[in-house]
Amino acid sequence: MKQFFKNIYKFWKKVYDSIQYHKQQHTLKEKLYVVIFESDTWSGKLFDIVLIGFIVASIALIILDSMHLFSSGWETFLRVLEWIITLFFTIEYILRVYCVPDKKKYIFSFYGIIDLLSTLPTYLGIFFTSANYLLLIRTFRLIRVFRVFRLFSFLSEGNLILQSLKESRKKIFVFFSFICLLALVIGTIMYVLEKDEPGTGFDNIPNSIYWTIVTMTTVGYGDITPTTSLGRFISACVMLIGYTIIAIPTGIVSVNIAKNVKGKTCKNCGRPQHDNDKSALYCKYCGKELDDNQYK
Amino acid sequence: MKQFFKNIYKFWKKVYDSIQYHKQQHTLKEKLYVVIFESDTWSGKLFDIVLIGFIVASIALIILDSMHLFSSGWETFLRVLEWIITLFFTIEYILRVYCVPDKKKYIFSFYGIIDLLSTLPTYLGIFFTSANYLLLIRTFRLIRVFRVFRLFSFLSEGNLILQSLKESRKKIFVFFSFICLLALVIGTIMYVLEKDEPGTGFDNIPNSIYWTIVTMTTVGYGDITPTTSLGRFISACVMLIGYTIIAIPTGIVSVNIAKNVKGKTCKNCGRPQHDNDKSALYCKYCGKELDDNQYK
Amino acid sequence: MKQFFKNIYKFWKKVYDSIQYHKQQHTLKEKLYVVIFESDTWSGKLFDIVLIGFIVASIALIILDSMHLFSSGWETFLRVLEWIITLFFTIEYILRVYCVPDKKKYIFSFYGIIDLLSTLPTYLGIFFTSANYLLLIRTFRLIRVFRVFRLFSFLSEGNLILQSLKESRKKIFVFFSFICLLALVIGTIMYVLEKDEPGTGFDNIPNSIYWTIVTMTTVGYGDITPTTSLGRFISACVMLIGYTIIAIPTGIVSVNIAKNVKGKTCKNCGRPQHDNDKSALYCKYCGKELDDNQYK
Amino acid sequence: MKQFFKNIYKFWKKVYDSIQYHKQQHTLKEKLYVVIFESDTWSGKLFDIVLIGFIVASIALIILDSMHLFSSGWETFLRVLEWIITLFFTIEYILRVYCVPDKKKYIFSFYGIIDLLSTLPTYLGIFFTSANYLLLIRTFRLIRVFRVFRLFSFLSEGNLILQSLKESRKKIFVFFSFICLLALVIGTIMYVLEKDEPGTGFDNIPNSIYWTIVTMTTVGYGDITPTTSLGRFISACVMLIGYTIIAIPTGIVSVNIAKNVKGKTCKNCGRPQHDNDKSALYCKYCGKELDDNQYK
Repeated sequence: MKQFFKNIYKFWKKVYDSIQYHKQQHTLKEKLYVVIFESDTWSGKLFDIVLIGFIVASIALIILDSMHLFSSGWETFLRVLEWIITLFFTIEYILRVYCVPDKKKYIFSFYGIIDLLSTLPTYLGIFFTSANYLLLIRTFRLIRVFRVFRLFSFLSEGNLILQSLKESRKKIFVFFSFICLLALVIGTIMYVLEKDEPGTGFDNIPNSIYWTIVTMTTVGYGDITPTTSLGRFISACVMLIGYTIIAIPTGIVSVNIAKNVKGKTCKNCGRPQHDNDKSALYCKYCGKELDDNQYK
Repeated sequence: MKQFFKNIYKFWKKVYDSIQYHKQQHTLKEKLYVVIFESDTWSGKLFDIVLIGFIVASIALIILDSMHLFSSGWETFLRVLEWIITLFFTIEYILRVYCVPDKKKYIFSFYGIIDLLSTLPTYLGIFFTSANYLLLIRTFRLIRVFRVFRLFSFLSEGNLILQSLKESRKKIFVFFSFICLLALVIGTIMYVLEKDEPGTGFDNIPNSIYWTIVTMTTVGYGDITPTTSLGRFISACVMLIGYTIIAIPTGIVSVNIAKNVKGKTCKNCGRPQHDNDKSALYCKYCGKELDDNQYK
Repeated sequence: MKQFFKNIYKFWKKVYDSIQYHKQQHTLKEKLYVVIFESDTWSGKLFDIVLIGFIVASIALIILDSMHLFSSGWETFLRVLEWIITLFFTIEYILRVYCVPDKKKYIFSFYGIIDLLSTLPTYLGIFFTSANYLLLIRTFRLIRVFRVFRLFSFLSEGNLILQSLKESRKKIFVFFSFICLLALVIGTIMYVLEKDEPGTGFDNIPNSIYWTIVTMTTVGYGDITPTTSLGRFISACVMLIGYTIIAIPTGIVSVNIAKNVKGKTCKNCGRPQHDNDKSALYCKYCGKELDDNQYK
Repeated sequence: MKQFFKNIYKFWKKVYDSIQYHKQQHTLKEKLYVVIFESDTWSGKLFDIVLIGFIVASIALIILDSMHLFSSGWETFLRVLEWIITLFFTIEYILRVYCVPDKKKYIFSFYGIIDLLSTLPTYLGIFFTSANYLLLIRTFRLIRVFRVFRLFSFLSEGNLILQSLKESRKKIFVFFSFICLLALVIGTIMYVLEKDEPGTGFDNIPNSIYWTIVTMTTVGYGDITPTTSLGRFISACVMLIGYTIIAIPTGIVSVNIAKNVKGKTCKNCGRPQHDNDKSALYCKYCGKELDDNQYK
C-alpha cells in the first residue's frame, strides 16, 4: 500500500519536473539537446520511440525491397516512403549538429558518421543509377539499429554480459590468434592432400583455410568435404581439436560471469562482494565483518 | 530392517487413507475433482496413467497417419480408433468443466484451451474435408504431451534445471535480442555481397538472416553457402563470433546451476555447504557438527 | 637418489612376490584365476596384453573385410587368421568358465555373454552363409574393446569423468525426456508446414523429428532443410532454442567436475576436501581445523 | 606525474643498458646469440620482427601460388622472391648453428629441425621437378609461424590458457580414448545397418567411423547421411550422446581456468583471493588489509 502511494508520488513528480523544465528559460538549442540526446524527460523518450519507429521502417523497406514481392504499382508507394524516411533522418541530423555543444566531436564520432551515411543513399540515387552500390551504402542505415541498445542500458543483465565479455576480451583475442595460426597450418596440409581430387573444393589454400574454420567451429556446411582416406582421418582429428578448444572461450566467459554475479552487500560501505560462493567473511573493500543475513 | 518395516507401514497407511477417503461423505463432484485434477490418491494416479495412455495413442495415430504405411483396409480401424480417443477426450473435458470449482478460470487457462482444441479436429472433420487444415488443428493435441511433466514434478532434478533456466531468463532474453540485431546486420551485408552469385541462395534478406542464424549457432546446413572470397572471409568471421558467444548462455546457466546446487546448511554459522554429495559431517567454515535433518 | 633405491627395491619385491606366488601350493584353478581375471601379477598383465592384442586383431579383421581391399589370394590368409582368433577366444572362454568360483554369475554377466557371443560367429558361419546376419553377430566382438578400459582403471582422470557423469545421470535423463517431447511437438509442426513442398524431406513425422534433433543439437546435416519462409523462421527459433539448452548439460557436468576436483587434505583423517575454492577452514569429515600448508 | 618520470627513467635505462651491452667486450658469437635467440635487447627485438616479416612473406607466397592468380609474367618475380627468402633462412640457420653453445641440442630440437626443413624445399626444387612433393616439404615452413608465439609470451592471458590446457591434458586424453572406442563401436553398427543402401556413403567401416565423429562433434557435413528409419533413429541417439559429452571437455577446462584465475594473496592468512579485478583492498577471509605488491 505504502509502495503504491510512493509510485503515484514518483509519477507526478516526474510529470511536474518535466513541465517545470519546459517552463524554465532555456534556449531552444538547450531544449532540443535534451529532447534529441537525452531520454530522461517525456519528450526525450517520445523522440527516441519515434526515431526507433523510423529506423525499423527503413529496415523493413530494405528487407521488402530485397524480396521482389511487389508489383510495379507498389513501387511508387515505396519510393515515397523512402523519401519521407530520408527527410526525417536529414532533419534529425541537421538538428543534432545544430544543438550539440561540441559539433566537431559529434560529426566525427561513430554515431555521427552513421547518422550522416544513413541520409546520403537516397540523394545519391538521383545522380547514380547503379542499384548495387546504392544498396551497399543503404546498409549503413542498418547500423542505426544499435541505437536501440540505448534503451537496454537500464537492464543490469545486459551490463553483466557486456562486462564479462569486456574482461574476457584480451584472453579471447589471444585465443583467436591461436585459432587463426592453427587454421593456416591445417588448411595448407589439407590443400596438399586433397588438391588433386576433382570436385572436393580444396582448390586453393584460402578455400582450405575456410574449410578448416568451418570444421573447427563445428559449423560443417558440407560444401567442401574430404574424400581421400588420409584427408578424412585428418578431418576427424581437426573436429576433435575443435571440440576441445570450443571449451576455452566457454571456460573464460563462465569464470568471468561467475565473478560478476553479486553476492553479499557490505552494510558498512554498501558495495556488493561479487562472490557468490558465500565463503567471504569480511568485506574486501573496507575490511568490516560481513553479516550472515546479508545474503541476497 | 527398521527402514523395511517403516516402508510397509507407509504403504498400508496410504491404502487405508485412500479407502477412508472414498468412504467419506464426499459429493460426486468433489470425488471427481480429486480423481481428475489430483494425483495423490490411487484412483487419481490411475486416471493420470489412463489419460497419458490415450495421449500417447493419439500421438501414435498422428505419426502413423503421416507415414502412409497402411493399405486402405487399415483405414477403417484407424478411423474407429480416432473416434474412441476423441470421445474419451470429450467426456474428460466435460467432466473437468463440471467438477472444477472455478469454471471460467479453467476454460480460459492454457490447459483448458488445449483440452478443448484436442477434441475439436475429429468433429470438424465431418464438415470440412480439407485434410491440411485439419492436421494443423490436430497438432494442438500434441501439446497435451506436456501433461506428462506433471509426473516429473517429484523429481528435484527437473526443478533444479527449471529453476536455473528461470533465473537465467532475463539474461538470455537480452542475449537473444543482441543475437537478432547482429543477425540482421550481418545478413544484410552478406546479401549485398552474394546476391549476384547464381545458385547460392542469398536471394533476399530474410534468407540471408536465416543463413546467418544457421551459421552463428554452428548448425551449418549447407543449403545456403557463400562462394565469393569476401563472402567466405566474412562467413569465417561470423563462425568465430558464433563460437565465442555460444559461451555466453553456457556461462549464464552454469553459474545459476552452481548457485542452486545446495547441500546442508550449518545451524551454527548459517552458511550453506554447497556440497551435494551428502558426505560432509562437519561445517567447513566453523567446524561444528552438521545435523542429518539439515538437507534442503 | 633415495627414491631411486626405493624404486629398485619395489621392482625386485614385485618379482620376488610373483615368483613366491607361483611356488606356493596353489591349485591350477587358482593360478589360472589369478592369471585370467586379475592383472596385479606379471603373468596376469601379460595375459591381458595378449588378450587385447587378439581383440585389436579381430577388430582390424572386421574393418579390413569391410574395405574390400584384398584380392582373392589374401582371402585364405584372412580366413585362417579368423579361425586362429576364434580358437583363442574359445579356449579363453572355456578357461574362464572353468576357473571362476561362481560359474553362473560369470556366464550371465555382461562380459560373460559378450565373451560367448564373440566366439560364435565363425562357428555359425559354417552353417549359415548369409554374410549380413553373420556380420551383425560379429560386431558383438567389438564390445570386447571395452575390456581395454580395465587398463585405464588406475587413471584417476577417468574416474573423475565417470564420477561426474554418474552424478549427473538423473539430471541428464530428465533433460533428455524434455528434449524428446520438444522434438515431438516441433517435428509435427514442421511436418504440417513443409509436407507439401517437393524434395524437402519432411515427408512424414518421424523424419521431421529426426530433422528437429539434427537441428537442435546443432549437427545440421542439410539432408532435410526447410524451404518455406515460415518453416525457415521456425527453424531459426529451433536453432536458438538448441543453442541455449546446449548450456544445460554443460552446466550440470561442469558443476559436478568442479565438485570432484580435490582440494586440501585433512591431516587428522586424511580425506581430501573436494573443495577447490580454498575457502574451507575445517575438515568436513572430522571437524578438525585445516592447515593452510595443506594445499595440494 | 611521479609515474611519468619513472617511465622516462625506465626508458633511458633500457637504451643505456643496450648501448653498454654492445660496448662491452663480448665476442661476436655471444653478441649474435643475444640478437638471434633473445628478444630483450633492441637489436634482438628488431631481428625477431624481420624474421616474422620473412615468415609471413614465405606463407603469403605459398598461398598466392595455390590461387593461380598470376599470369606467367609474375612467375619470375615470385621465383626471385622465393630465392631471397630461402637465402635469408639459410643464413639464419647457419648463424644459429654457429652461435648456439650446445650445437647438437639445437640441431635436433623441434625448432632446429623446422629451421632446417624450411630452407630445403627451394634447393630440392633444382633436382626434383614434381611439384606435389615439393609443396609437401614447403608446408613445413608454415610451422615456423609458431615462432610468432614467442612474442605472445609476455601476455599472461596466453599463459593462463596454456596452463589450463596443460593441466587438463591427461583428462582430455582419457576422454578422447573413450570417444574413439565409442566411435569404433557405433561406426560398425551403422555400417551393418546402412551398407546396403545405395549412395549413402556408409560403404566401409572407416567411412562409418568418420561419419560417427562428424556427427558426435556436431559438425554434420551431410556428405554421409543415414536413410533407413533405424539408421536415423540411431543417428539421433548419437547426436544426443555427442551433445552431452561435449560438456565434458568444457567442464574440465572451465574448472581449470577458474582455478588458475588468481588474485592477491593475503599476507596474514595466506589465502589467495580468487578475485582478479584488483579492486579488493581487504582479505575476505580474515579482514586484514591487502598489500598492492601482492599481485601474482
